[in-house]
Amino acid sequence: MLDVTPSARAQAFLDRFGEALAKPDIEAAVAMFAEDSYWRDLVSFTWNIKTMEGREQIRDMLTQCLSTVKPGDWRVSEKEPVNEAGGVMEAWFTFETEVARGYGLMRIRDGLIWTLLTTMVELKGFEEKAGFTRPLGAKHGVNVGTKSWKETREEELATLGYSKQPYVVIIGGGQGGIALGARLRQLDVPTIILEKNERAGDSWRKRYKSLCLHDPVWYDHLPYIDFPKTWPVFSPKDKIGDWLEMYVKVMDLNYWTKSETKSATFDEATKEWTVVVDRDGEEVVLHPRQLVFATGMSGKANVPQFKGAETFLGDQHHSSRHPGPDAYRGKKAVVIGSNNSAHDIAAALYENGADVTMIQRSTTHIVRSESLMEIGLGDLYSERAVQGGMTTAKADLIFASLPYAILHTFQKPVYDKIREVDADFYAALEKAGFRLDFGVDDSGLFMKYLRRGSGYYIDIGASQLVIDGKIKLAQGQVVEILPHGLKLDTGEEVPADLIVYATGYGSMNGWVADLCGQALADKVGKCWGIGSATPKDPGPWEGEQRNMWKPTQQEALWMHGGNLHQSRHYSQFLSLQLKARMEGIATPVYGLQPSHHKS
Amino acid sequence: MLDVTPSARAQAFLDRFGEALAKPDIEAAVAMFAEDSYWRDLVSFTWNIKTMEGREQIRDMLTQCLSTVKPGDWRVSEKEPVNEAGGVMEAWFTFETEVARGYGLMRIRDGLIWTLLTTMVELKGFEEKAGFTRPLGAKHGVNVGTKSWKETREEELATLGYSKQPYVVIIGGGQGGIALGARLRQLDVPTIILEKNERAGDSWRKRYKSLCLHDPVWYDHLPYIDFPKTWPVFSPKDKIGDWLEMYVKVMDLNYWTKSETKSATFDEATKEWTVVVDRDGEEVVLHPRQLVFATGMSGKANVPQFKGAETFLGDQHHSSRHPGPDAYRGKKAVVIGSNNSAHDIAAALYENGADVTMIQRSTTHIVRSESLMEIGLGDLYSERAVQGGMTTAKADLIFASLPYAILHTFQKPVYDKIREVDADFYAALEKAGFRLDFGVDDSGLFMKYLRRGSGYYIDIGASQLVIDGKIKLAQGQVVEILPHGLKLDTGEEVPADLIVYATGYGSMNGWVADLCGQALADKVGKCWGIGSATPKDPGPWEGEQRNMWKPTQQEALWMHGGNLHQSRHYSQFLSLQLKARMEGIATPVYGLQPSHHKS
Repeated sequence: MLDVTPSARAQAFLDRFGEALAKPDIEAAVAMFAEDSYWRDLVSFTWNIKTMEGREQIRDMLTQCLSTVKPGDWRVSEKEPVNEAGGVMEAWFTFETEVARGYGLMRIRDGLIWTLLTTMVELKGFEEKAGFTRPLGAKHGVNVGTKSWKETREEELATLGYSKQPYVVIIGGGQGGIALGARLRQLDVPTIILEKNERAGDSWRKRYKSLCLHDPVWYDHLPYIDFPKTWPVFSPKDKIGDWLEMYVKVMDLNYWTKSETKSATFDEATKEWTVVVDRDGEEVVLHPRQLVFATGMSGKANVPQFKGAETFLGDQHHSSRHPGPDAYRGKKAVVIGSNNSAHDIAAALYENGADVTMIQRSTTHIVRSESLMEIGLGDLYSERAVQGGMTTAKADLIFASLPYAILHTFQKPVYDKIREVDADFYAALEKAGFRLDFGVDDSGLFMKYLRRGSGYYIDIGASQLVIDGKIKLAQGQVVEILPHGLKLDTGEEVPADLIVYATGYGSMNGWVADLCGQALADKVGKCWGIGSATPKDPGPWEGEQRNMWKPTQQEALWMHGGNLHQSRHYSQFLSLQLKARMEGIATPVYGLQPSHHKS
Repeated sequence: MLDVTPSARAQAFLDRFGEALAKPDIEAAVAMFAEDSYWRDLVSFTWNIKTMEGREQIRDMLTQCLSTVKPGDWRVSEKEPVNEAGGVMEAWFTFETEVARGYGLMRIRDGLIWTLLTTMVELKGFEEKAGFTRPLGAKHGVNVGTKSWKETREEELATLGYSKQPYVVIIGGGQGGIALGARLRQLDVPTIILEKNERAGDSWRKRYKSLCLHDPVWYDHLPYIDFPKTWPVFSPKDKIGDWLEMYVKVMDLNYWTKSETKSATFDEATKEWTVVVDRDGEEVVLHPRQLVFATGMSGKANVPQFKGAETFLGDQHHSSRHPGPDAYRGKKAVVIGSNNSAHDIAAALYENGADVTMIQRSTTHIVRSESLMEIGLGDLYSERAVQGGMTTAKADLIFASLPYAILHTFQKPVYDKIREVDADFYAALEKAGFRLDFGVDDSGLFMKYLRRGSGYYIDIGASQLVIDGKIKLAQGQVVEILPHGLKLDTGEEVPADLIVYATGYGSMNGWVADLCGQALADKVGKCWGIGSATPKDPGPWEGEQRNMWKPTQQEALWMHGGNLHQSRHYSQFLSLQLKARMEGIATPVYGLQPSHHKS
């Protein structure tokens, strides 16, 4: 038997796959997938973000897409070794389509594809100017009447949105809008980002005082400029605000501060949006071709309407408006909710001398930050990973290569391990009366994030305060707000000078309703969630985040956002979808999902 | 004969060297150097920046330093392969001293050391908090009365310089002051940077409109945060201004804008400086232990006093104050000088419709930017180098490893090649009447920069204007300024509505004279130059830049600056010298150079 390297075997497999697709012989290609297989495509085949699950869905996609996609030139990546372990061969590869270059990862088991990830890297002829092709900057040669960089930039700032229309308007200038805006800038897509606050980064600065990112720095890089090696693991909110502000500046984004969007309407005839903006008191009407909501998947505050709330004599506000503990020293504070914000706010109130009670209304998933870092993220996003040669781009793709339909099976062992390691911690919490869960299927934090974006606390110290009784705990549903406190369905009355509603956020299509009307919001449907039919993530199964980063039922309307990781990663694919449309490249969308749920 | 790897042979050599030093057997160590050898030390052995040339100087240094330095643990670096080519073995290595960790590069020829570079990387016990040891950011655990990052930072900004004194004051907030300030921040050395302009980066913004960096982006990175891969090759001045401004912000520097230093005096008894600052109209008196001038080695304008200058009826100003061409359309402009600024300013004036004459007073070295990039810098600082695995840190050290005494012998072939490749270009320039040189020994641009910091133009287009006669040329010395022009020693009169004095800059000790008095400036002596006894670099030979980044004749007074490359590279060694002094680590300076020349 010949001694064939893993790389040569992977290439032979790819050659066979490529030939089947080129012929085209769809059945031959489909037969190379296992019965139980997944093909996740980020824009390259489907002009969508889509996971085909099993041979039948793969066959359907190929039948519809293959003739226009025209994939070819499948090659094992020279930069990454082919891995074989536990009966699975993992190989990175490049490929091309008619209009783009792609990169992917396949896992082969028993000679058949188990998982396949295909991603679009760049559009041919519209590559980013970077590295060897970066701009020269200085204008070499003789340039009569030439403008300096500053003059050119100032002219752009003065004209875009007035005498020249942007192709894209992004509503919301947090990390989502900023990351997407940076990629669009590099692709020469005229874009304006609308931010209601006074400064870039204010959406972080204005949060509660003690807030630090719960995700570690290695997970949080923006495109193009990494945080330095001296940056804190968990970035304080004001520091991340400053970073975003500088990023907007040095990446030359057209970022309008103090600019609140009042309305947005789409003209189906002209295919143009009319976006009315209050720009620091001046009404400006924009006419982009594409409109992106980057208003924050945790941006639309969910404030429950409790009976008697209007009679409360103290301060009451949603967690998104909580200023911090300084004014509440010696006061009785009640925090309704038991997720991240609730814990952070309760701990800061306690540390600053308030008497704090947390109202736990439902079970909560808690993971100690150290354990999450070490056991949950460490292989992909950590100093250890960096030192081992892991790059952010590679980590993002490995993560993206795990299909959502089976992701929980990869996640469960992680949390089983965490439960084992932190058994004493969890026992102490339960002894203190805290009601725990690990997700309905024990798959832990990240699945909760994908499914519902809530239901957990990454512990950085508040749990010890709960264990020690320093943050008091009350269990039950709030039935009424009283002038000096609130009443639970257990009959218990909790006195309060301050009530913080740490009650989470609604679907992003709530923003669409505000700006474009309820009918359009309903047409788009619920954003976020994957349709897992678990709490707060109603079915039907979609297998990708609903409406995020991909075409929606409303032409030319897009949803962008998520944490820093998602803002970085998915902005690549959304920017390519927008660029292709601007350049008139055909973008036939495969499997546009119907809308589900109104909010 | 045993098949011993280059790495093993390099290690065996290092072992022998280490043993000789440990014993100590100075003669055995010296005998491992070639007669014609160079040991360049950046702080690790000498607490100085010093090149020992030949066995005698090496013997002297070891005799004086070895007993306190106590070097050991010499190991071939695992990260870099040992190279052998052309009879020279190149090996990177790590080592330790009593108080520090070091990194170095040796070149061995015929079994003897030809060049040795030893550099200090970090002080033991005072390492930068980076990578694995970066700060956590979030304050995990229970922190009663804890302050947020923002509150801590605001307190620092409010108190440092008032109720708390900085250990270091840096005068000048250009790239030099900023790079050093960033490193000192990471080493926890309380530092204030004083900048007279309104914003960080203004020292670039306020230069002539068409200015772009003449050095390419790969050569220009600051410490900690690299420019992104999309950054222009030659950064426009306003863009570099913005980058510096954001860097100051996100690196948390204590950077006082609108702060002009009025005077600085050193008390030899208390070992304390008294620095009087006008901070936006308020007088603030600072008492640092260490004072750094980072006022720009091209910061002190050299304006010649020509007879009749006061009679000139048009505009006249030094190049550092030239606003750009806009006001001079249709006017007669004369630029005195023929180096970088003169060419840039003349070209921009021509391109904007002025009638321009350049006065060439002496021969000038010209290199086409493309040739400089490709032939001069490409192996170390280019996209090609980056793609080949070269890092900025490694490139800096390779560059640093070439002793100044023989650097011209490495440089001459580079410029011979450039002359060959660009022969037609040079012939056309000479035909146009331009007088060329390549340095007195034909060693080209970088040697001119090291020796005198002037005498060259990196051509990005203006030379073609000279060749084409679009920028007119006049040769000679200015003998008199007339009301409507100037007169040369050739008798030629050149009419002018505008005269730009592109006449260069003086020694940085001119700044010392302004702030500390002439006596102290004379005590320090000339800054810059290596003592090559070539034009504008008078001897005696020093072999390092005079007074730069190392102890001077004035205790606690330091000079820092240079281009972005030098600001990045040498700030490492200056920051370590300052940190060691703050921590009370003994820093016996070997071979403190006497001062030479008054300006």
